[in-house]
Amino acid sequence: MERKLIDGKLENTDSTSELIKQSADEISHLAIDIGGSLIKIVYFSTNSKCSTNDEAPTLPKERQEVPNGDLNHHILSGRLHFVKFETSKIEDCINFLSSKKLQQCGAQCHHSHTVDKIKIKATGGGAFKFADLFKEKLGITLDKVEEMESLVAGANFLLKAVNHEAYTYIGGRKEYMQIDQNDLYPYLLVNIGSGVSMIKVDGDEKFQRVSGTSVGGGTFWGLGKLLTKCKSFDELLELSHEGNNRVIDMLVGDIYGGMDYAKIGLASTAIASSFGKPVSENRELEDYKPEDIARSLLRMISNNIGQIAYLNALRFGLKRIILGGFFIRDHAYTMDTISVAVDFWSKGEAKAMFLRHEGFLGALGAFMNYKDGNADLMPLQLVEQTPKSSSCIVDRIHNSTRVHENESGAIDCRLRVSSSFKIYDEVKRC
Amino acid sequence: MERKLIDGKLENTDSTSELIKQSADEISHLAIDIGGSLIKIVYFSTNSKCSTNDEAPTLPKERQEVPNGDLNHHILSGRLHFVKFETSKIEDCINFLSSKKLQQCGAQCHHSHTVDKIKIKATGGGAFKFADLFKEKLGITLDKVEEMESLVAGANFLLKAVNHEAYTYIGGRKEYMQIDQNDLYPYLLVNIGSGVSMIKVDGDEKFQRVSGTSVGGGTFWGLGKLLTKCKSFDELLELSHEGNNRVIDMLVGDIYGGMDYAKIGLASTAIASSFGKPVSENRELEDYKPEDIARSLLRMISNNIGQIAYLNALRFGLKRIILGGFFIRDHAYTMDTISVAVDFWSKGEAKAMFLRHEGFLGALGAFMNYKDGNADLMPLQLVEQTPKSSSCIVDRIHNSTRVHENESGAIDCRLRVSSSFKIYDEVKRC
Repeated sequence: MERKLIDGKLENTDSTSELIKQSADEISHLAIDIGGSLIKIVYFSTNSKCSTNDEAPTLPKERQEVPNGDLNHHILSGRLHFVKFETSKIEDCINFLSSKKLQQCGAQCHHSHTVDKIKIKATGGGAFKFADLFKEKLGITLDKVEEMESLVAGANFLLKAVNHEAYTYIGGRKEYMQIDQNDLYPYLLVNIGSGVSMIKVDGDEKFQRVSGTSVGGGTFWGLGKLLTKCKSFDELLELSHEGNNRVIDMLVGDIYGGMDYAKIGLASTAIASSFGKPVSENRELEDYKPEDIARSLLRMISNNIGQIAYLNALRFGLKRIILGGFFIRDHAYTMDTISVAVDFWSKGEAKAMFLRHEGFLGALGAFMNYKDGNADLMPLQLVEQTPKSSSCIVDRIHNSTRVHENESGAIDCRLRVSSSFKIYDEVKRC
Repeated sequence: MERKLIDGKLENTDSTSELIKQSADEISHLAIDIGGSLIKIVYFSTNSKCSTNDEAPTLPKERQEVPNGDLNHHILSGRLHFVKFETSKIEDCINFLSSKKLQQCGAQCHHSHTVDKIKIKATGGGAFKFADLFKEKLGITLDKVEEMESLVAGANFLLKAVNHEAYTYIGGRKEYMQIDQNDLYPYLLVNIGSGVSMIKVDGDEKFQRVSGTSVGGGTFWGLGKLLTKCKSFDELLELSHEGNNRVIDMLVGDIYGGMDYAKIGLASTAIASSFGKPVSENRELEDYKPEDIARSLLRMISNNIGQIAYLNALRFGLKRIILGGFFIRDHAYTMDTISVAVDFWSKGEAKAMFLRHEGFLGALGAFMNYKDGNADLMPLQLVEQTPKSSSCIVDRIHNSTRVHENESGAIDCRLRVSSSFKIYDEVKRC
């Protein structure tokens, strides 16, 4: 489902057919991240078919210059789009891709128009699991990009190239941060998908997966589905808005007769035991409100991730914890719980930061991988440019998109591609 | 319920009346730990009423000498018993205590026979919450001992004084360890009650609560009760014996099409997302077996505790993680999961160790607190003695019990009490 900015929040559109219609026949480049629960797609559309025009119609005037322009490169102006599907409904994704003219005009086709030559960059476990399905149904070969490498490349791209991408969430308020490029590394990247990966990022392509936990988004959704009969992750999240976790959680005050446990710094309202209240109550599942259960579950998982993230940040002396993955979904209570957990455990030393395109790190990273020198594929890297605080931040890397996020969560940008790649000629022709 | 050694495991007897009968009118000292889910009681019975005889009838001959005996001290031979009740059934506990002759002959009575002068050492939040109830129903004042202090005192006592108290659990086998007294500190004490406390222990009364998590025994029982309709923690634990967590958890292989994610060291059988499988299945709670749910839940919580414990041990350079609390209950799968988690994350550097009297650290610690110099109460400390590998290990501390664990999980011991305390005269008389 594509995401739209509604009341300052990225919301999902819920119609695949609408999605297909919106972006019909525009895709020139596409990368896919197939996780345990969700399929995330990033694609670049050129607005006008296979344009080589330098002008991006939606870009403000001051962002239209082409740095480092030379005869060996051509510029495609257009937009990066972000789409997701449930992995369990992979047919929707297949239908979506099938509706596109990848076979005729994709950045991935080359040398011939036969379907068996189409390759798209793909990451996540599903790039392995569903490789045969993509080949069979779409004639597409999934060109696998390592998952952690993709996450890191995606996060680095967003942090460096997209204005107002990162923000803190404190006391119910977002504060957008423009991180100084010289002070970006190292940081802890925490990607919360079905499970959670924690990666120490030291630079471009310099990283190490240092930890993780199986208590992630899949746990929230899976347990939540069993406990509340919710039909979707978003429904469960919505439900948690209305809930009160104190009905389900055993608080310090429940044990201490309403008192704080001051000596170890635990207020009476602190959770002593998640889901501990049913222990001493003669009530069944049906006697509890689904919204209270959803709230308690969200709190338990967010808290736990915040704590493990902090412990890993501490271990490597990292002050900045950057969270991605589709668990967060710009959800106030989730972000608040994680922020408070990191603040509580680190005594204010470490900061949790969130990303507007949180769920698409892997897919974006796979997209960036078209730069990898494979003659079949297109280069895609950042253009060197002086950072501007009010627009895009770019750095040393050559070749690139220049980016500007528009109102739908999509990113207006230019894609610079080398003329030496045959694929480019294909794209021009189509 | 009292615990009995059955097939090498400490099992619970399930009749309060049997318990009351077993130990009627023998209690000379008693301490209580009232947690969110369980009440734990440690009491000392003298076998023969208020004996001052040096001979403990159940002790082997070689353990009957009385070191440092002097005229100012008297010796009580007897046994430490361990009993627990559910906090939600506190009436059972009240009935149990009421059946005892605490009012006439408790270590806690003194100066007069009026009920309002009885004091017993108590710890845990319930020492605050239920103080009025104990006063009203039993005329007992709960003399509060700080919870962390109690846990540490209890753990140190067991590690130093009780032979074969600590063990590792690796590959389905227990290996009992006798820890060198000179190499005991520092260690990480992880007490898993309803919630979890993690304490860095540096010596007697030298400790710091460094971490904790709300995902503990109360979470296992509370969530398990909602998901499986089990009536007790033990029933839920029993159920998990038969379960298969792979039916509920999303494994790495489920995402990667049966493959390992070798690059980051995750086997295809590793859990990627706890409870992640229902996400992509069109099944409701009733369609899953309760035993599979119980198993998955136990694995999730044990794993998580093992991981957070390891991260805290790492933080302070502690090689030894000692686990207590009633969550573990000598349960093979729990211990195995925690041990494997600690081993996995620490790459074999840290060790998880368990305690036979795991659930009674707080109550034992409160019991030890009778040594605190309060003239109303009795001293209880360890006697100096050369360690013997086949019997009890004792160390520098003066005044004491000497201990030997018998077949019922109770500990045969002698209690040395100062004659200068009036209470002792009371005890002698009754």
